[in-house]
Amino acid sequence: MGNTFGHLFRITTFGESHGGAVGVVVDGCPPRLPLDVADIQAELDRRRPGQSKITTPRQEKDQCEILSGLFDGQTLGTPILILVKNQDARAQDYQEMASTFRPSHADATYQAKYGIRNWQGGGRASARETIGRVAAGAIAKKILRRVAGTEILAYVERVKDLQAQVDVERVTQDEIENNILRCPDPEMTAQAIDLIDSYRQEGNSVGGVVGCVARSVPVGLGSPVFDKLEADLAKAVMSLPASKGFEIGSGFAGTTLTGREHNDEFYRDEQGRIRTRTNRSGGIQGGISNGEPIVLRVAFKPTATILQPQATVTQAGEAVLLTPRGRHDPCVLPRAVPMVEAMVALVLCDHWLQHQAQCGGWLMG
Amino acid sequence: MGNTFGHLFRITTFGESHGGAVGVVVDGCPPRLPLDVADIQAELDRRRPGQSKITTPRQEKDQCEILSGLFDGQTLGTPILILVKNQDARAQDYQEMASTFRPSHADATYQAKYGIRNWQGGGRASARETIGRVAAGAIAKKILRRVAGTEILAYVERVKDLQAQVDVERVTQDEIENNILRCPDPEMTAQAIDLIDSYRQEGNSVGGVVGCVARSVPVGLGSPVFDKLEADLAKAVMSLPASKGFEIGSGFAGTTLTGREHNDEFYRDEQGRIRTRTNRSGGIQGGISNGEPIVLRVAFKPTATILQPQATVTQAGEAVLLTPRGRHDPCVLPRAVPMVEAMVALVLCDHWLQHQAQCGGWLMG
Amino acid sequence: MGNTFGHLFRITTFGESHGGAVGVVVDGCPPRLPLDVADIQAELDRRRPGQSKITTPRQEKDQCEILSGLFDGQTLGTPILILVKNQDARAQDYQEMASTFRPSHADATYQAKYGIRNWQGGGRASARETIGRVAAGAIAKKILRRVAGTEILAYVERVKDLQAQVDVERVTQDEIENNILRCPDPEMTAQAIDLIDSYRQEGNSVGGVVGCVARSVPVGLGSPVFDKLEADLAKAVMSLPASKGFEIGSGFAGTTLTGREHNDEFYRDEQGRIRTRTNRSGGIQGGISNGEPIVLRVAFKPTATILQPQATVTQAGEAVLLTPRGRHDPCVLPRAVPMVEAMVALVLCDHWLQHQAQCGGWLMG
Amino acid sequence: MGNTFGHLFRITTFGESHGGAVGVVVDGCPPRLPLDVADIQAELDRRRPGQSKITTPRQEKDQCEILSGLFDGQTLGTPILILVKNQDARAQDYQEMASTFRPSHADATYQAKYGIRNWQGGGRASARETIGRVAAGAIAKKILRRVAGTEILAYVERVKDLQAQVDVERVTQDEIENNILRCPDPEMTAQAIDLIDSYRQEGNSVGGVVGCVARSVPVGLGSPVFDKLEADLAKAVMSLPASKGFEIGSGFAGTTLTGREHNDEFYRDEQGRIRTRTNRSGGIQGGISNGEPIVLRVAFKPTATILQPQATVTQAGEAVLLTPRGRHDPCVLPRAVPMVEAMVALVLCDHWLQHQAQCGGWLMG
Repeated sequence: MGNTFGHLFRITTFGESHGGAVGVVVDGCPPRLPLDVADIQAELDRRRPGQSKITTPRQEKDQCEILSGLFDGQTLGTPILILVKNQDARAQDYQEMASTFRPSHADATYQAKYGIRNWQGGGRASARETIGRVAAGAIAKKILRRVAGTEILAYVERVKDLQAQVDVERVTQDEIENNILRCPDPEMTAQAIDLIDSYRQEGNSVGGVVGCVARSVPVGLGSPVFDKLEADLAKAVMSLPASKGFEIGSGFAGTTLTGREHNDEFYRDEQGRIRTRTNRSGGIQGGISNGEPIVLRVAFKPTATILQPQATVTQAGEAVLLTPRGRHDPCVLPRAVPMVEAMVALVLCDHWLQHQAQCGGWLMG
Repeated sequence: MGNTFGHLFRITTFGESHGGAVGVVVDGCPPRLPLDVADIQAELDRRRPGQSKITTPRQEKDQCEILSGLFDGQTLGTPILILVKNQDARAQDYQEMASTFRPSHADATYQAKYGIRNWQGGGRASARETIGRVAAGAIAKKILRRVAGTEILAYVERVKDLQAQVDVERVTQDEIENNILRCPDPEMTAQAIDLIDSYRQEGNSVGGVVGCVARSVPVGLGSPVFDKLEADLAKAVMSLPASKGFEIGSGFAGTTLTGREHNDEFYRDEQGRIRTRTNRSGGIQGGISNGEPIVLRVAFKPTATILQPQATVTQAGEAVLLTPRGRHDPCVLPRAVPMVEAMVALVLCDHWLQHQAQCGGWLMG
Repeated sequence: MGNTFGHLFRITTFGESHGGAVGVVVDGCPPRLPLDVADIQAELDRRRPGQSKITTPRQEKDQCEILSGLFDGQTLGTPILILVKNQDARAQDYQEMASTFRPSHADATYQAKYGIRNWQGGGRASARETIGRVAAGAIAKKILRRVAGTEILAYVERVKDLQAQVDVERVTQDEIENNILRCPDPEMTAQAIDLIDSYRQEGNSVGGVVGCVARSVPVGLGSPVFDKLEADLAKAVMSLPASKGFEIGSGFAGTTLTGREHNDEFYRDEQGRIRTRTNRSGGIQGGISNGEPIVLRVAFKPTATILQPQATVTQAGEAVLLTPRGRHDPCVLPRAVPMVEAMVALVLCDHWLQHQAQCGGWLMG
Repeated sequence: MGNTFGHLFRITTFGESHGGAVGVVVDGCPPRLPLDVADIQAELDRRRPGQSKITTPRQEKDQCEILSGLFDGQTLGTPILILVKNQDARAQDYQEMASTFRPSHADATYQAKYGIRNWQGGGRASARETIGRVAAGAIAKKILRRVAGTEILAYVERVKDLQAQVDVERVTQDEIENNILRCPDPEMTAQAIDLIDSYRQEGNSVGGVVGCVARSVPVGLGSPVFDKLEADLAKAVMSLPASKGFEIGSGFAGTTLTGREHNDEFYRDEQGRIRTRTNRSGGIQGGISNGEPIVLRVAFKPTATILQPQATVTQAGEAVLLTPRGRHDPCVLPRAVPMVEAMVALVLCDHWLQHQAQCGGWLMG
């Protein structure tokens, strides 16, 4: 359980970081969507390790294969299996983890829950699992783009104490992708890269915040009461490794306003659409998208893997000092950007299908 | 869809604020749990309107009936129907809402999604829907208490800019319930009540933060990878009306630390249990509970219902000035406390059942 | 668990035969469907006890209330709660069952599974639970009729050894409802009523077969591979009390034919539609409806409640002779007819919504 | 949708007959179960084509790989990916199917539903999809054997009009596997093999019935009301290709008995267990297993693929005469035997986990 996400556009991921393969089965995809390996690979390349000096040097090409669900370049409506074989596996780097729990990793809890764990590189708890999510998210993005021109852009918004200035209405993919940090604020980016690099050199790590905006989202997505759109978005991104917080619209800062200040007044725009003058709601009201940009933020803790000695215990409970070798991401944020986009896309696509089912206009047609 | 929550301990809520009744069906409850109406009513009384000067004056007793699933004071293992009839319905207060969209309410999005809405008092989007959640949560709490002595305590942690000091390891139910704010910090409480009352008098509202700690949670709850415990907790509380943000453990503040500072070092305590010296993880590592207190925070926006004039549009799109009459909660926080507890209890109980299913020790037994 | 049926048009039933109430929550219903109590009551009246001399004399009006999900005579798209209070409860008739297991009832297995049971009248295992199904089925039928003119007719096809002749292409609701057996073959009906009545007089019971045809079913319903339409239909009717077998199309008899004889050849009819000359497939090929009438049959065992002495054991395991008093249905078939229709309608309606979600034509539109 | 089966022991199959691969992801498997490829391969070898003169001569080794979820020969509790690459693909045999609908196949309905299909060898509707089921069923069987000594045996019970005599209490795996038909009645087997072979030679096919008995099933499995054990078994086997009917216990024949004759009287056996003297209930009462052998039967139609000319239409609707080439199974029954066992095992294993979750005795412990 727990390895399937979504109701109608439903993905099941599998794979440990050092087992045979990782990947995903995508079920419920509509038929006749043009799709090929390049659609998927483009997103995986944004996620893969070894991209720059501020990500882990672990080199994996993460080359994907599509083994079912396609025919003549189109989806069949049947399950799509996307597979990435594991390659750069250095089990020896992890030998010490066979018997020792790394602080703030999943070693101890997996051992406690299952009585067994693949201690090579984090096993199922490795960020490598997100390959399946990003691959599936590429399909969800493509669907949303076709049906509504929806654009989903995540970006690094904060690194430690450095805050970027981002205009969620106008930020572009190019502004985000033109630097290794994936941050659309050039000034802050330069400082942040230096900051990350200096912590990398001392074998330490930093955290920060990834923001995300989804524009041109159809009105009406979200399913009261438990499957409110913000609730499903929260679950989606809080299931990513290292995430510690979630905000929609005004978030925690909005709690310092009064109702008078916080409410988004309605008006009718020139095209006759009902809009809100402000967007503290973050594009969602009553759990349902209102057509304004959906704006959310995700807190990511500093990477737990650091190359400094730390006090911990062995599986047998003995106190030891652990100094991991291996390779590490000094900051997960740049690689978290495509993960956040993928999770947001999966939620929106699933809710689009749900909306067609219940409210698709077929009843009265 | 969207009205069912949980996989194994599964609740389905129903009801509009001004329809015939609201309530819940609880499915999957283990058999032979002693249960009576008083267990449920005690929690509903903490949630009901009209408790104090800082909650809405709407008077509803919210008296519940249990119409199935019990026999001789014990659960049968069959669905438990808990029903609360609606009583203090003043549809006339809402007449204007029949054609006008209240800012930052769900009126406009429900109308857009469904092409129809019960405009009397918020309909399904009313906080009245949470009666079913709180009722079901009372059962979940009882189960957790019996199997593990788990104690779940929510409390008001911030009101607008007023921050309470709370010791999550020691805070007690009594400290929380001995004031109408449900805040364990007496000094801040006095100020906050005055603050809320002053905004109430001007027909305005304020928001804030509800914190929650779950102590004596069994180790091993949570299901990688999508159903990580923090992901399910995030979804649970972000499905509550007016919630805008979620944090687990160190949350957003934790992103300003380095990995060295943030990691929770392990040690073995005197009873031989593996513990962490700090708890920035918030009781969850790798999506699985580690036995430390689970600590989370939920941001609640200021109540959207205010009694001041606001610019908005009618359903037909005409600009109007709306001055709601009706009654309003100047601050949702005190009534949100039992709601947050209920949602946390539902998630933990569901995961407890899931854990028994997959890892209950029966395989090797 | 186990009390919810369907993925998108999803029902949850609740209630014991002698608890406070029985009923159903219907979630996922499309909005703006005209609906009132009479729509539901008409179907409940076909299911209720006390209709004729060949059903149980237990008198229950089974008057339903709709307590949520409706507004101004239309569905809101929110959960619909339909409730029927229990009335004619004679717990004293069942006193003996408190400690004794009735043969071929659910007493012993409920006790073994749950360690507790409501022994008054069968509790949750009572056919009274089907009230919720029939009520929900009335809504599903209404939807299918509106979107595709779908007509679902069940009928008694066999009583013990008496076989009716039924033309599935032409049989009408009137032919079925004009007699207390609900069998469209008048000759067989007269004999069968006498047969049932004679077994009733000796306190015995008989079984038989209910057939069902669904005409004007949209092409394309059914979801390979596990949710094939016939698989979901089989589950649906095999979840009815007393059912022991299921057939689709040619069923068991079809296994005596060769492939040459069994295959349904295709042709194009005058309207240009692709049809099959024969319908051994029963309207479903590859798990997907092909537009031909869906034809199925359900075997119902003779009612387990008989008023003759039978050897059995007490809960403590002592051998006793049990002679039930109470009231009994000498033959479940006439009342099973609306139950079968309801279950078939629920499956088709759910698959209609699923089909809109994945293949609704919105992708390319 | 539709490609996932089970709630807690949950499988997702993928793959077309002539795409890259077929297989399954198994989620929810308990950890620390010893498992290797040989456990899976043994069952796949019983299912694979080319076993004997009465199965299709298509030669596929169906060699499986396990690419995740295992570590040091034990399950991790994480998803298990089992993959079988497609090899003996002769797309040219199917060229004609690109534009022509084979009678009683899924060609026409897939085309109608999805607007696209992989016409090479049946695509997703091919029996090749069942590889994933059989592989997953091997794991379920292993679990059931360990926890309860449960033994699940399917066998050919009827071929066309030839009926086998089978003693469900005593039949053994050896008796079933010692002949190519997988029928424990030697006399009938000899005749049936000749019968099948003669139909094979004329390019025709035959159907029949597969029986199945599950012995030593734990008491208490099955979840009222919709997930009754017989309902889930019915769905499971009716989702197999070519199945047309299902019976549990007395089945259709039981409908000719009176209640007096049909009821299974209880007694206490020498070990003090409550048993039934007869087993017309088929091991299930009230939807819950009672510890008696679970006995069911599945009707399989004659294979739709025959090598004789048949009238049909092209995708464009033109009448044509089709004479398939390709290879065909003259009778699906011998290969259906492991499929039925797998589906029964999956249902029982899933219900075992569900039962542990709700009634596992942890509440009062």
